[in-house]
Amino acid sequence: MQEGKKAFNQVLDALTKKDREVLLELIEGIHHADLAEIFEDLNEEDRIFFSDSVGAEKFSTVITELPDTIVEDAMSSFSTDDQREILDQVSDDDRVDLLQDVSEETRDKLLALVEPDDIEVTRSLLRYGEDTAGGRMTTSFGKINLEMTVKEALDELRDSYAESETLARVYVTDSKDRLIGRLRIRELAFNSWNTPISEVYQECTHTILATADQEEAAMMFSKYDLIVLPVIDEQDRLLGIITYDDALEIIEEESTEDIERMAGMSGDISENSYLNTTLSTHFKRRFPWLLGLAFLAIASGYVMIKFEDVLNQLYIMALFLPMVVAAGGNTGGQASTMVIRAMALGELDKGSTIKVAWKELRLGLALGALLGTCIAIITIFMLPLFYTDMPAEVGFVKFGIAVAIAMTMQITTSTLVGSLLPIGARKMNIDPAVVAAPAITTIVDISGMVIYFIVAQLMLL
Amino acid sequence: MQEGKKAFNQVLDALTKKDREVLLELIEGIHHADLAEIFEDLNEEDRIFFSDSVGAEKFSTVITELPDTIVEDAMSSFSTDDQREILDQVSDDDRVDLLQDVSEETRDKLLALVEPDDIEVTRSLLRYGEDTAGGRMTTSFGKINLEMTVKEALDELRDSYAESETLARVYVTDSKDRLIGRLRIRELAFNSWNTPISEVYQECTHTILATADQEEAAMMFSKYDLIVLPVIDEQDRLLGIITYDDALEIIEEESTEDIERMAGMSGDISENSYLNTTLSTHFKRRFPWLLGLAFLAIASGYVMIKFEDVLNQLYIMALFLPMVVAAGGNTGGQASTMVIRAMALGELDKGSTIKVAWKELRLGLALGALLGTCIAIITIFMLPLFYTDMPAEVGFVKFGIAVAIAMTMQITTSTLVGSLLPIGARKMNIDPAVVAAPAITTIVDISGMVIYFIVAQLMLL
Repeated sequence: MQEGKKAFNQVLDALTKKDREVLLELIEGIHHADLAEIFEDLNEEDRIFFSDSVGAEKFSTVITELPDTIVEDAMSSFSTDDQREILDQVSDDDRVDLLQDVSEETRDKLLALVEPDDIEVTRSLLRYGEDTAGGRMTTSFGKINLEMTVKEALDELRDSYAESETLARVYVTDSKDRLIGRLRIRELAFNSWNTPISEVYQECTHTILATADQEEAAMMFSKYDLIVLPVIDEQDRLLGIITYDDALEIIEEESTEDIERMAGMSGDISENSYLNTTLSTHFKRRFPWLLGLAFLAIASGYVMIKFEDVLNQLYIMALFLPMVVAAGGNTGGQASTMVIRAMALGELDKGSTIKVAWKELRLGLALGALLGTCIAIITIFMLPLFYTDMPAEVGFVKFGIAVAIAMTMQITTSTLVGSLLPIGARKMNIDPAVVAAPAITTIVDISGMVIYFIVAQLMLL
Repeated sequence: MQEGKKAFNQVLDALTKKDREVLLELIEGIHHADLAEIFEDLNEEDRIFFSDSVGAEKFSTVITELPDTIVEDAMSSFSTDDQREILDQVSDDDRVDLLQDVSEETRDKLLALVEPDDIEVTRSLLRYGEDTAGGRMTTSFGKINLEMTVKEALDELRDSYAESETLARVYVTDSKDRLIGRLRIRELAFNSWNTPISEVYQECTHTILATADQEEAAMMFSKYDLIVLPVIDEQDRLLGIITYDDALEIIEEESTEDIERMAGMSGDISENSYLNTTLSTHFKRRFPWLLGLAFLAIASGYVMIKFEDVLNQLYIMALFLPMVVAAGGNTGGQASTMVIRAMALGELDKGSTIKVAWKELRLGLALGALLGTCIAIITIFMLPLFYTDMPAEVGFVKFGIAVAIAMTMQITTSTLVGSLLPIGARKMNIDPAVVAAPAITTIVDISGMVIYFIVAQLMLL
C-alpha cells in the first residue's frame, strides 16, 4: 500500500511536469495491475498524456485491469491503428470483456478492427452471457491429439513456447475435438520421444458447460482446488478454459454484491473503487431503497397513531418501545444474514426450508426468552428506583412480565421472518440478498409495534 | 448439488446396512472434498464405521477438508498406528492445520507420532500464527541451485516426478538459500541438457514475508493473478510457498467474517456449515450483541419519556417518528457497508478519512434533502385528506417542513456516523465490521429521536 502510494506520487509528478522520459522509466518498473490503479486515479488530461506516452502495446496490459466504466474513454484516446494494436495484443477473453464494456456503437467500430485470425473466436465468445462460464472462458490453451507421440506433441507445442499461458494447460482431444484429458508438460520432459500421448495423459475430473452460471464455476474451483477448468459444449467438445484468477474475481464480485444488496444498495456493483465512484452513482444506488423503506416505515407510525390511547394510559411503556422494536430488527438481520451467506456458499439446497425454519424457531424462542428475562428482571428490580409513577393496578411485576412476553414474541417472529424471507425470495427467483437487513428491519418494526401494544392492552389495561 | 445428494444417499444407505464392500466401491468414485461434506453430515456411529472402513490412507485426504471443529473427534476414532499413517500422508501445511485444530493435549500426543523426517518442518511451521503467511505456507516445492545445468536440474527433480505438487513450482536459490527466481518445467523440456539454469530461470516479481497477514497474501493473489507466492524471511531466504487455493479460501473466509460481523454476530466464524452448526453455537454468537443493543435501545426509550409533553401536544408527530428514526439506520447502514467493503478490498488507505467524510456528507445532504422533500409534499398535500385534527396554529405546511428538516438532519448525521465509525474503529485497531449495521442503527435511533423532537419543539410548539 505504502509503496503503491509512492509510485503513484512519482508518476503524478512526472505527469505534471509532462516529463515523458521519466514517466516511461517509472512505468517500466510497475506491474500493470498497479498501473491500472494509478490510471484510474488520474484526471482526464493526465490520462490522455499517460496513454499517449506508454503507447498501445504497453497500454493493452493496463486496459484489461481497468474498471468497466472507464474502458470506453480509455480506448477513445487512441488512434484507430493503436486501437487495432490493443485489440490484437490482448487475450481473447480480455478482448471480449473489453467489447462488452463499451457502447454498442463503439463495439461495432472496434469489431471491424479485430484481426481476421481472431474475429471468429471473438464473435463466438461474445454470444455467451457475461455471467456464464462461456462468457468467462479463454481459448488460449494448448491442444494436442490423442494419437500423437511425445515427439509430435513437442513439435506441435514448440510454437506456443513463448506464450507462457498456453503451455500451462495442454489438453488432449480426440479426432472429433472431444475432450479426452489433460497433459502435464513434465510428461514431455521426462518421457522418451516415442511414448504415445495416450499412455501419459491424465483424466479431467471436472468440466463445466459453457452455458452454466459463473458462480457454479467459482464454487468448483474453491471446492476442488482447481487451477484450470475446461469448458465444454453439450457434445463434450472443448470450447475453452476458465482459470483460477477468474474464480478469485468471481468470488470477490459475488461477495461484494451480496454485502451491498444486504445493506439495501440497488443496481449493479460499481467496478470503480469507492472513492472513484461518482457521487451521483452512489446516490442512485442508495436512494430507491431509502424511499421505499421510508414509506414502509409510515405503517409503523400508523400503528402508533392507532394505539395512542394505550400509550397515553401508560406512557412508561415508551421506555421499552424502541427496544422491543429494534430487537426484532437485530435478530431478523442476523437470521437473514446467516441464511443468505449459507445459500451463497451452496450449503442450503432447495429442500432445507423446514430444517432452517425449525432451527430458527428454536433459536428465536431461546434468544427471546433469555433477553426477555433480563429485561423483566431490570424492570421489576431496578426501574422502581428511578420511576415512582407506576399505577398500582399495573405494578412493576406485571409490567416487567408483559415486556418480556412482547420481547419473546417479537424476537421469535423476527427470527423466523428473517430466515424465511430470503428462502422465499430464492423460490421466486429473486436474489435473496435483496430482501435482506433493511427490508426485514422495517417489516419487523411494524410487527414489533403491534405486538408490544396488543400485549400491553391485554395484560395491563 | 443434485449429484452430491444422490451420492450422499447411496453412502448413507451402505452405512445403514453396514455394507463395507458397497461403501468402499462408492467412495472410490467420490472426490475427497465431497467425501468430507458427506462425513460432516453423518451421525457419530456412521462416522466411526466410515473412517474404519476407508482406512487411514484414504481418510488422510478427507480429514484435510473437514471443518476444524470435528477434526479431533475424527482423529480419535483411529488407532495410534493409523494416526501415524495419517500424519505421514498429509502435506506439511495440512499437518500443521490438523495439529492446530486439536486440543493441546492431543497435539502433544500427535506430535510424538510425526515421522522424524517431518518433525523439524512441522515444529517450525507451528511457530507461525494461523493467520500469517507463514502459517498458511507449505514447504512442498521443487528447489534447485542457480549453478546447475538443465541436466542436473532434471536429475535433481526426477525423484519428485511423482509428487504432482512439487514440480508445479520449482524455485532457484543461491548457495545461501536466498530466493533468486523460479524455473518453468518447460525450460527443462525445450532446452538442451547443458544449458545453465542461470540462463533460463525467471525472476520472481512478488514475494511475502512469513510474518505478514494472510489477508495481505490473498490481496496479492487477486491483484496480480498469481498461482504461487513464495514466502521468505527477513534475509530473503525461501521458507515456503502459498498457493492460489489458499488465497481462494482466505478470501471466502474473510468475506464471510465481514458479512457476519456486519450483522452483529460475535466470535469466530463457524467452520461447520449453517445446518451443521449447533443451536448453542448459533445462540452464543448472536446473544451478546442482542443484549448490548437492547440496553442501548433503552436510551431511545428514555428520550421518548423526556419528550412526552412534546409528543402529546401534537400526537400526529408519531406518524413520522418511526420513519425519521429508521431512515437514519438505513442510510447509516448503507454508508458503513460501503466503507467497510472498500477497506476490505484495500481501497482506502489511512489518509482517506477526510475524502470519505466529504463524500458522505454531501451524499447524506443530497439523500436527506430529496427524501425530506418527498415526505413534505406528502404531508402538505395528502395528509389533510386523511387527518382533520391538525391544530390551526401548526398547519400542514409547517408540519411538513419540520418533518423534512428533521429527516435531512437525521440522514446527514447518520451517513456521517455510518461512514466514520468503521474508519475510527480501524484507527483503534478494532475490526471495522464489528461496529457495523446493528450498532450504528441503534446509535442513530437515539439521534433520530432527539433531532425529531427538538425540531418539532422549536418549529411547531
